[in-house]
Amino acid sequence: MSKKIITFGEVLLRLSGQHHERLQQASVFDVVYGGSEANVSVALSQWSNTTSHISVLPDNDLGYAAIHALRKFGVGVESIQLQPGRIGIYLLENGASVRASKVIYDRYDSAFAKLDSSNINWEEILNGADWFHWSGITPAISASAAKACLAAVNAARKLNIKISGDINYRRVLWQYGKSPQEVMPELISYCDVVIGGKTDFENCLGIVPQGEEDPFVSVCKQVTKQFPAAKMFANTVRDTIDASENSLYGIFYAGNKLYTSQVYNLHDIVDRIGSGDAFMAGLIHKLLHSNSLQETIDFATAAAAFKHTIPGDALIATQEEINQLVQGINVGKLLR
Amino acid sequence: MSKKIITFGEVLLRLSGQHHERLQQASVFDVVYGGSEANVSVALSQWSNTTSHISVLPDNDLGYAAIHALRKFGVGVESIQLQPGRIGIYLLENGASVRASKVIYDRYDSAFAKLDSSNINWEEILNGADWFHWSGITPAISASAAKACLAAVNAARKLNIKISGDINYRRVLWQYGKSPQEVMPELISYCDVVIGGKTDFENCLGIVPQGEEDPFVSVCKQVTKQFPAAKMFANTVRDTIDASENSLYGIFYAGNKLYTSQVYNLHDIVDRIGSGDAFMAGLIHKLLHSNSLQETIDFATAAAAFKHTIPGDALIATQEEINQLVQGINVGKLLR
Amino acid sequence: MSKKIITFGEVLLRLSGQHHERLQQASVFDVVYGGSEANVSVALSQWSNTTSHISVLPDNDLGYAAIHALRKFGVGVESIQLQPGRIGIYLLENGASVRASKVIYDRYDSAFAKLDSSNINWEEILNGADWFHWSGITPAISASAAKACLAAVNAARKLNIKISGDINYRRVLWQYGKSPQEVMPELISYCDVVIGGKTDFENCLGIVPQGEEDPFVSVCKQVTKQFPAAKMFANTVRDTIDASENSLYGIFYAGNKLYTSQVYNLHDIVDRIGSGDAFMAGLIHKLLHSNSLQETIDFATAAAAFKHTIPGDALIATQEEINQLVQGINVGKLLR
Amino acid sequence: MSKKIITFGEVLLRLSGQHHERLQQASVFDVVYGGSEANVSVALSQWSNTTSHISVLPDNDLGYAAIHALRKFGVGVESIQLQPGRIGIYLLENGASVRASKVIYDRYDSAFAKLDSSNINWEEILNGADWFHWSGITPAISASAAKACLAAVNAARKLNIKISGDINYRRVLWQYGKSPQEVMPELISYCDVVIGGKTDFENCLGIVPQGEEDPFVSVCKQVTKQFPAAKMFANTVRDTIDASENSLYGIFYAGNKLYTSQVYNLHDIVDRIGSGDAFMAGLIHKLLHSNSLQETIDFATAAAAFKHTIPGDALIATQEEINQLVQGINVGKLLR
Amino acid sequence: MSKKIITFGEVLLRLSGQHHERLQQASVFDVVYGGSEANVSVALSQWSNTTSHISVLPDNDLGYAAIHALRKFGVGVESIQLQPGRIGIYLLENGASVRASKVIYDRYDSAFAKLDSSNINWEEILNGADWFHWSGITPAISASAAKACLAAVNAARKLNIKISGDINYRRVLWQYGKSPQEVMPELISYCDVVIGGKTDFENCLGIVPQGEEDPFVSVCKQVTKQFPAAKMFANTVRDTIDASENSLYGIFYAGNKLYTSQVYNLHDIVDRIGSGDAFMAGLIHKLLHSNSLQETIDFATAAAAFKHTIPGDALIATQEEINQLVQGINVGKLLR
Amino acid sequence: MSKKIITFGEVLLRLSGQHHERLQQASVFDVVYGGSEANVSVALSQWSNTTSHISVLPDNDLGYAAIHALRKFGVGVESIQLQPGRIGIYLLENGASVRASKVIYDRYDSAFAKLDSSNINWEEILNGADWFHWSGITPAISASAAKACLAAVNAARKLNIKISGDINYRRVLWQYGKSPQEVMPELISYCDVVIGGKTDFENCLGIVPQGEEDPFVSVCKQVTKQFPAAKMFANTVRDTIDASENSLYGIFYAGNKLYTSQVYNLHDIVDRIGSGDAFMAGLIHKLLHSNSLQETIDFATAAAAFKHTIPGDALIATQEEINQLVQGINVGKLLR
Repeated sequence: MSKKIITFGEVLLRLSGQHHERLQQASVFDVVYGGSEANVSVALSQWSNTTSHISVLPDNDLGYAAIHALRKFGVGVESIQLQPGRIGIYLLENGASVRASKVIYDRYDSAFAKLDSSNINWEEILNGADWFHWSGITPAISASAAKACLAAVNAARKLNIKISGDINYRRVLWQYGKSPQEVMPELISYCDVVIGGKTDFENCLGIVPQGEEDPFVSVCKQVTKQFPAAKMFANTVRDTIDASENSLYGIFYAGNKLYTSQVYNLHDIVDRIGSGDAFMAGLIHKLLHSNSLQETIDFATAAAAFKHTIPGDALIATQEEINQLVQGINVGKLLR
Repeated sequence: MSKKIITFGEVLLRLSGQHHERLQQASVFDVVYGGSEANVSVALSQWSNTTSHISVLPDNDLGYAAIHALRKFGVGVESIQLQPGRIGIYLLENGASVRASKVIYDRYDSAFAKLDSSNINWEEILNGADWFHWSGITPAISASAAKACLAAVNAARKLNIKISGDINYRRVLWQYGKSPQEVMPELISYCDVVIGGKTDFENCLGIVPQGEEDPFVSVCKQVTKQFPAAKMFANTVRDTIDASENSLYGIFYAGNKLYTSQVYNLHDIVDRIGSGDAFMAGLIHKLLHSNSLQETIDFATAAAAFKHTIPGDALIATQEEINQLVQGINVGKLLR
Repeated sequence: MSKKIITFGEVLLRLSGQHHERLQQASVFDVVYGGSEANVSVALSQWSNTTSHISVLPDNDLGYAAIHALRKFGVGVESIQLQPGRIGIYLLENGASVRASKVIYDRYDSAFAKLDSSNINWEEILNGADWFHWSGITPAISASAAKACLAAVNAARKLNIKISGDINYRRVLWQYGKSPQEVMPELISYCDVVIGGKTDFENCLGIVPQGEEDPFVSVCKQVTKQFPAAKMFANTVRDTIDASENSLYGIFYAGNKLYTSQVYNLHDIVDRIGSGDAFMAGLIHKLLHSNSLQETIDFATAAAAFKHTIPGDALIATQEEINQLVQGINVGKLLR
Repeated sequence: MSKKIITFGEVLLRLSGQHHERLQQASVFDVVYGGSEANVSVALSQWSNTTSHISVLPDNDLGYAAIHALRKFGVGVESIQLQPGRIGIYLLENGASVRASKVIYDRYDSAFAKLDSSNINWEEILNGADWFHWSGITPAISASAAKACLAAVNAARKLNIKISGDINYRRVLWQYGKSPQEVMPELISYCDVVIGGKTDFENCLGIVPQGEEDPFVSVCKQVTKQFPAAKMFANTVRDTIDASENSLYGIFYAGNKLYTSQVYNLHDIVDRIGSGDAFMAGLIHKLLHSNSLQETIDFATAAAAFKHTIPGDALIATQEEINQLVQGINVGKLLR
Repeated sequence: MSKKIITFGEVLLRLSGQHHERLQQASVFDVVYGGSEANVSVALSQWSNTTSHISVLPDNDLGYAAIHALRKFGVGVESIQLQPGRIGIYLLENGASVRASKVIYDRYDSAFAKLDSSNINWEEILNGADWFHWSGITPAISASAAKACLAAVNAARKLNIKISGDINYRRVLWQYGKSPQEVMPELISYCDVVIGGKTDFENCLGIVPQGEEDPFVSVCKQVTKQFPAAKMFANTVRDTIDASENSLYGIFYAGNKLYTSQVYNLHDIVDRIGSGDAFMAGLIHKLLHSNSLQETIDFATAAAAFKHTIPGDALIATQEEINQLVQGINVGKLLR
Repeated sequence: MSKKIITFGEVLLRLSGQHHERLQQASVFDVVYGGSEANVSVALSQWSNTTSHISVLPDNDLGYAAIHALRKFGVGVESIQLQPGRIGIYLLENGASVRASKVIYDRYDSAFAKLDSSNINWEEILNGADWFHWSGITPAISASAAKACLAAVNAARKLNIKISGDINYRRVLWQYGKSPQEVMPELISYCDVVIGGKTDFENCLGIVPQGEEDPFVSVCKQVTKQFPAAKMFANTVRDTIDASENSLYGIFYAGNKLYTSQVYNLHDIVDRIGSGDAFMAGLIHKLLHSNSLQETIDFATAAAAFKHTIPGDALIATQEEINQLVQGINVGKLLR
């Protein structure tokens, strides 16, 4: 049965050099449109789910192109608002070998950051939905974005819609005068499913591992205690050998139990941006369509791993491809 | 004898699609760094002049790349300041045939717009210079940019340096609360040479042609009357058949006389951005190195025409190439 | 008021060399997805109309990419069927100067050509629509495509939906055993609006101009006589100076009167493929939203002219841009 | 002494995305022409052998381009027939890391598949040749292709020319009504040298390893028993860590003995298509020019390994480069 | 009946920027291999003639690539020598609009310039040929190249083979100590057909128009008088409006009569390099296959005009395409 | 405190194929300008040093572009001479996996090779400098280049400027009649710091390791004995697994002690050209700005390792990036 998922967040223009050039060298930028939460809808749309992404974009060609990038994959864009202003931009320098990748954000004062929260009718938008997803990037952008986020989770809770939040802590955002710990706890308190790691929980909730328990489990337990709605927690654990070689596995604490996926050793990584969003999409998909928590973390982690092989922000993959990766079938083969 | 010219203005990142794509279609953007006043220095540097461009750029890879783009041609960058913030951006959609070219500005709140005028020691910067050039884009950006511009012309006047101003009126700028007519007259009052057309003079100085005289001459006379320092006026006159075919000639009112260049019929225009800046460069160059006013307008107009054949903001041409175009030598030939 | 238009036809993969290379030279092909009827929906979707395109595509990555190319612009794809098989392909060699452009079709036995007409529930699809559009390419492809086309116009007629047909005669199609004159007359008999020129009418209906009347008017009158539903006729008239320079105007016979647009002189043509489809879209749009027949042919022809400036099959333009071209505003200017 | 090798098979247009894009993402396809058997001739031509490839191609620009791609390397094309029809196409999605590569065949009803076997005068073509090579792809395409293949091996046998066959089993071909086991055994019976692995032998000959012997040796012995002409067998054994990292070695059963090459650990694979054909070319080359069976398998395997480093279907390498790889000289160095 | 043509001359690596960039701007160069005389063979090979090009190339990858570029089109390369040394290079800056195109030669001391004339067995090479073609570039390169050219025409004359020479005067060559007038007259004395214009004849033969006769006819008559073998003379006459727009017609003086082709108005020229070689190829082709001198100049000029539409040095066109251009059929149309 | 470094050597045009194509396959070359000694200045300029590169370049567009490539990064170009002639060229084929990279030099008779040593006023150039750097490529090119190099070290010694020499032995150079051992010893005798490995010392100085001491130490001791000025020696030690995977560490013998850096395991190498020059730049930088010899070799080796991740000849990196690599911070991470 098809499920309906609503995601909310900024859609950015991403500019990056080609062939491992440093940003200073680029005479051409690759153009991609994406955003953490929109990426989740893009992936979910490919797995027979109904999705709608909520955002504000500038009423110019770049705003239209961002809409095209979502609608192309079947994401509903009917509630995206076009306003005067600019599109948020980020510049990505793809690392290589020992050189790090880096992001330069140029997203302040975007049309999204200036959104007017009172213009969004969340109850109407969320009506009929099964799931609402937001991430910690949105409340980090501006006071009005944070306000809209809060209104959204409020409405979702009222309508009994499942809520997931990806803490997604980014130090360089949060420039508008509020600290994460002033804003995030309330937002987290509405969530059923929370994505985050040690740094995220510490910076946004002030929670650190206690005792000798597994640190992730320790943190999860504390969060649940504080925010009883929050009962499921997941994250990817990455070991960065260098920019081209990482290993990755997923952890999922749910029902008082810690589930762990296999470890993926990733060589010749093409583009790791969006792998966390692919993980989130996988998690939502399986929580909506499966009863197995192990299957859930397995699928989500394989989706995250698969994303590393695709240029751009979006995971482009069928469910079958992800399932085969879970089972170790056809990994890296030549299929003909 | 080598002359020294100082230019002042913002340097922007320009993004444009390839092969006449509309901006919405672009999957890659060509990357160019330029700005109206910096373009003047780039051209002048190729003709054995010493130049220095004054600007504020962000202290990040895009700021460095902008500096590279000027220094590459020999423009002095020692007085460019690196500050926190963002680079001004503009998106260029190259038109074709009946379709217009269009520019989307994304330059508000750039590091340049936020410059701290008190940080610029104009007397030191201008010391030893022969010419100072600014354009009406700078005072249109922000109050502090306007203030810096005023400080610059003041200092230049004090040091007896020739001053040129390109009115360069852009309706969509001027968003910071002042109207052009509140700001421009004082700035123009310092200029020896003014570039402008009917729209420019009307919008920035409130001056319109009077009587039956040639409208350009009429306006020039009024400006001189009002601002006695301003004794020379020039402009290009363009007939746009379509995006690919224009004709162009130059007019120059100086010493109570109107000088006119030949008309250039331009087919298959490659990139017309920066042709006004090439014109300005040509004018400055000849006013510094020649006594002939006719030669001056001829060289300036040929420089403007030549610019239409080169991708990017910058005129890349030797004096000899411009001179040959003035004389109709080798126009469009295959030289081998 | 938003109108709903349904289009029906094959969506093809178009491959073409870059930079005026001959096909033999190409080491890369530009990839575009489009089709005569789908192109009509793409343009209409940009003008606040609701559209849905009906087609059959292969259930593989190329089929998905074709769907993306339509959905991106907002065309409804919910009734496109995915079947086993191949996508129709055409190779386009862009001409230049005196060299002609040429198309190599590789579309036989495509998933569309093999469509099973009985699988398409036209009454459901057309329910609520205001307009149905087909072209003569579809009945030229295969017997089953012709059959589906007939079923569609039948259903549209039953539901009192306006019908347009673009005769679009292509000599090299019609390989499945039927001649155009065996198939087209019945299809045309259902149409309210017919697009065609001298060659089209002669080859598909066997109708040639009579007497000394304007040849187009003469043909239109004969068609109306034979097929009383067909009351409006339009076409573009092109003068090909060479591959880069054409002139173009539109003719529209409706209400016993011949309406003519201005002539567009097109230099430096970027891509003329799809200009007839842009014309069709303009015609449908104005017939649905305006009462002026002159405005209709003016808008349609400007849409056709504008298409020549855009790479790919699709017209990408706002109504305002087309209206400005009709009025000669901003033609080929630099807007900033 | 120069030897003459004749190869027979389809030449395809290969289309693939750039930079690890998924096929759905591609806005540009790289264009390559190649085919399993033609690739063998391309490699052999670079090693001072005389070659001629036999095929049928469409009489259009794509057919001419395919001929160019072979003739460029010196492959004889004088017996390639140009017929009406289409070129066979395959789309290649290059995998990366854990993502598999995949091929979409679009080759049905190609001009080659429809070849008229009676038009090929094999005795004339093979006259003076030292070797004839075919692969199992040809009899998998169509009945007439299979018939031509049989006529070819018959003629080659009559003329006492050595024959090699690469079983090359592809499940998705064989659509014309015959099973491999109905067609392949007779063709194999004419071969002196057979390339194949476990799957190939099982699917095409119904032969599976017996007893505790080395499975490859076991299969080879059974084949020889059944088809006494077939006395030499070879294959590459590949371990696919992922799409970028494989290890590879060659096995060669000849004169009742199993010869094995060194193992090549391949990182950062550029393009593995055609590595089997490079292996075949190496085998033929050494069987014609050397008496050492160990040298033969060493050279063939190094050729296969080397192919992984080159974009496209063709091995481009000198004998010296292959020999250096066999000896571990200059592997991955910077030679200057 | 197929004819055999032998051409002799250097094959160069041509490097040029993309999209009308100036050479200084280029971050990539397009790579093309060609040469005036080889270009003639490339065109002739496409019209069912047998050709062989004689040259010396370096024994390195660039030499091999140059051979590929000729062999690809079917030009015989069996007599090309591979020697140590460098390939001749030229850099081409494509002009646009009023900006000229320009060539930077970097061809001194190439393997060709250092050829050892005694290594070329002209009688063997020319045996069975119907035509030998050389151009004035070869004797301009080096003393040994001039010597080889003389040996070639000597041998051709002895074997009664028709000889054509394209004077092709390039001021910047002729650096090895001889003046054109010391070398060219003897070479011209062997020619049956001579291509040249006013500058060519004046600089290489010291012949200028006399009296009031048509200047070309006057020069031709003087040449014939001096060199009785030279009975046919042709040239293209070009009017360069700018780099994108030229007009062109051909003149042919033969049998005491002046034949003139139609005038071609060429817009949006893609690449004019090699148009003279296309003209030469057309002339040779028709002189070998037709009796009509008017048909000859018509075909040759259309070939020259057609070349302007194709990137690279080589004319890629069928006889039918050239014939259609002669007849004004399908000029710049869209053929589908 | 800013230091001033002078470097001397040829600047070459580098041409290489894209995407691991073999040179024979390239239809496009990437264009880079660089040279061993100039690369040192480019890196040093990014670390707040003042640099000036001394060279001779052709007075044409390629010479200007080479100057742009240096000036862009702030390298002083005021002493570069423009002379008639050609630019030295090298073609780079990027290897992959088991395939080696290779360089084809085309640099003979370049404007640099023909430099007139008497035109360079070394005392003026070196006045005020802290360091002079040369490499063994220069004396390998031509007698006049060797002579200029000797004049330079002489003048530097006179002015008490520190001197570094990178032996950089290239077998294929040294074609002008002198052997390395006739030229290099005198040049080395002036150096304070020498870069070299076993092959370098053996070929240029005839010195080989003695006894059971560490071979590098043994050689260094012998050199110091022979040339007492030479007191510091360094080199990188590379283990080439294949073209994509190398490991690298640095050794530095100074003050009678051998310092060793950590080992860098480099995967997915982007471009190793210029890594030795980056090492040299790091060494000079730290010898001028630090007292720690361990810090010196650590920084130099990290600079060399970092260079492998950047396309082109030049190291583009901040001091902070190199320092972080030394400390293992952020290696290959995604920084946002």
